[in-house]
Amino acid sequence: LRADAVWQAGAVTRSDARVVALAGTRNLVDAAGQHALCPTRAAAPQLFDAARELVFLGLLDGAPCYAALHDAEPATTAGGFVELRSVLATLDGDDLSLLIMARALAHWHDTHRHCGACGAPTTSFRAGHARTCTACSREAFPRLDPAVIVLVADESRCLLGRNPQWPAGRFSTLAGFVEPGETLEDAVAREVREESGIRIAMPAYVGSQPWPFPASLMLGFEARPLTDAIEVDGEELAEARWFTRADITAGLADGSLSLSPRRSIAFRLLERWFDRGGTPLRNLSVT
Amino acid sequence: LRADAVWQAGAVTRSDARVVALAGTRNLVDAAGQHALCPTRAAAPQLFDAARELVFLGLLDGAPCYAALHDAEPATTAGGFVELRSVLATLDGDDLSLLIMARALAHWHDTHRHCGACGAPTTSFRAGHARTCTACSREAFPRLDPAVIVLVADESRCLLGRNPQWPAGRFSTLAGFVEPGETLEDAVAREVREESGIRIAMPAYVGSQPWPFPASLMLGFEARPLTDAIEVDGEELAEARWFTRADITAGLADGSLSLSPRRSIAFRLLERWFDRGGTPLRNLSVT
Repeated sequence: LRADAVWQAGAVTRSDARVVALAGTRNLVDAAGQHALCPTRAAAPQLFDAARELVFLGLLDGAPCYAALHDAEPATTAGGFVELRSVLATLDGDDLSLLIMARALAHWHDTHRHCGACGAPTTSFRAGHARTCTACSREAFPRLDPAVIVLVADESRCLLGRNPQWPAGRFSTLAGFVEPGETLEDAVAREVREESGIRIAMPAYVGSQPWPFPASLMLGFEARPLTDAIEVDGEELAEARWFTRADITAGLADGSLSLSPRRSIAFRLLERWFDRGGTPLRNLSVT
Repeated sequence: LRADAVWQAGAVTRSDARVVALAGTRNLVDAAGQHALCPTRAAAPQLFDAARELVFLGLLDGAPCYAALHDAEPATTAGGFVELRSVLATLDGDDLSLLIMARALAHWHDTHRHCGACGAPTTSFRAGHARTCTACSREAFPRLDPAVIVLVADESRCLLGRNPQWPAGRFSTLAGFVEPGETLEDAVAREVREESGIRIAMPAYVGSQPWPFPASLMLGFEARPLTDAIEVDGEELAEARWFTRADITAGLADGSLSLSPRRSIAFRLLERWFDRGGTPLRNLSVT
């Protein structure tokens, strides 16, 4: 449907067309932070009409649905514009997926207003899923930055690290962007070695998650350590430690340890390992 | 070492520094197309001095190694500049990895000379692994486009398709770029459905491969079909067919079928399935 210009021209004017509004990087959600607000054109025409760009997201309950990108907050009758991170724990899962998609596309439009090759302005086409240069006609498509994220663990303990920007006591799995020329498996081994000094055996793929901060595609792995001595570089990680299940249980109980949000693939990787010990991590973690 | 500006300033002047030269999208290889040519600064100073950009690739046998980007072909004493695709089948594997990395970085520099947000010129930093905007200071890092590639197969047959630009008889696994907001597994199911009309069960990750045409990261899967009737869209695929191992064996023998190069992940996915039948595909395929 994106490529069907005739269909698009009609769809965007339909009174039942739905809108996912963004103001800069902020999404429109209800006051409780539990649901996305996606009104129809009939109910909120200003969310369509004042938009800088409209991006077709697909059909929502049979009606065409658009991300509407605004520089400043448009008037709304309910809810408010918030950073997605602030409602990660409360927002409905399907709504989160929709808002993640809209936010990723908004970030791409914002950072591709000009052609990278010649610098001239670009314009949107294919219903907002491509931009073309007004001078050299070079085309650009929404980008995703593939990143690996890995739980290094054996039967009894796992390796977690703390980012220098995080508060004391917050720990997560190791992660980093894939570089040109390497496989995912190369990237996992390199990141673990660079950040912690640990060498690993061949990593096993677990699953993936889109992560729009700003446009990452997280590719999750588990890997067994081959070495023991941790050496952090101090830049990517402030500290890294081996945690047993008992360490994690005690740290969560006394508040000295905090983990990534339950919705994140970081939590899911840790949970997958932790739960092999017999007690579900979700019973212990509060966020 | 990329971030160590003092080390970099000395390294690039070393007489034993090695150079991987590119002219536009073409790499320098020997006359037989079997090896990359990576001379030292002492042997080929013009390959360094005439370069538009130098990108630090790492240490090669202990010496710093740089990709040198040229707009026009610099003078060389041996070999010639060729498109990597033309030597995929003949080039040494380690050399291919090195040239793939250089070509991916060259493409990124070429398409990021200007800031996508404001249009001003950018300059290279971090030894060629980042660019920053001279006006708004926005930073950009080498991009990779994650793409899924999948062999849809049950015990007895597999699904292969033909791109409209390919000659009659050339078939390969289905593939496509991951879109914002979807997991890899979502992307695999969507691409197979869009291109062939086939529905699949949960795909299983097999492995990954960097693929610099121009900057893809191929993420390989195998998936079982849930439906039988093929319906191609005619745009992404001109045709798609179910192939038994006997169909593939006969097609390769009489020349009516050609496959992707042995070095590609497409071939490796097909081989992994085919070889479960007892006869190695490599014994039948000629490229």
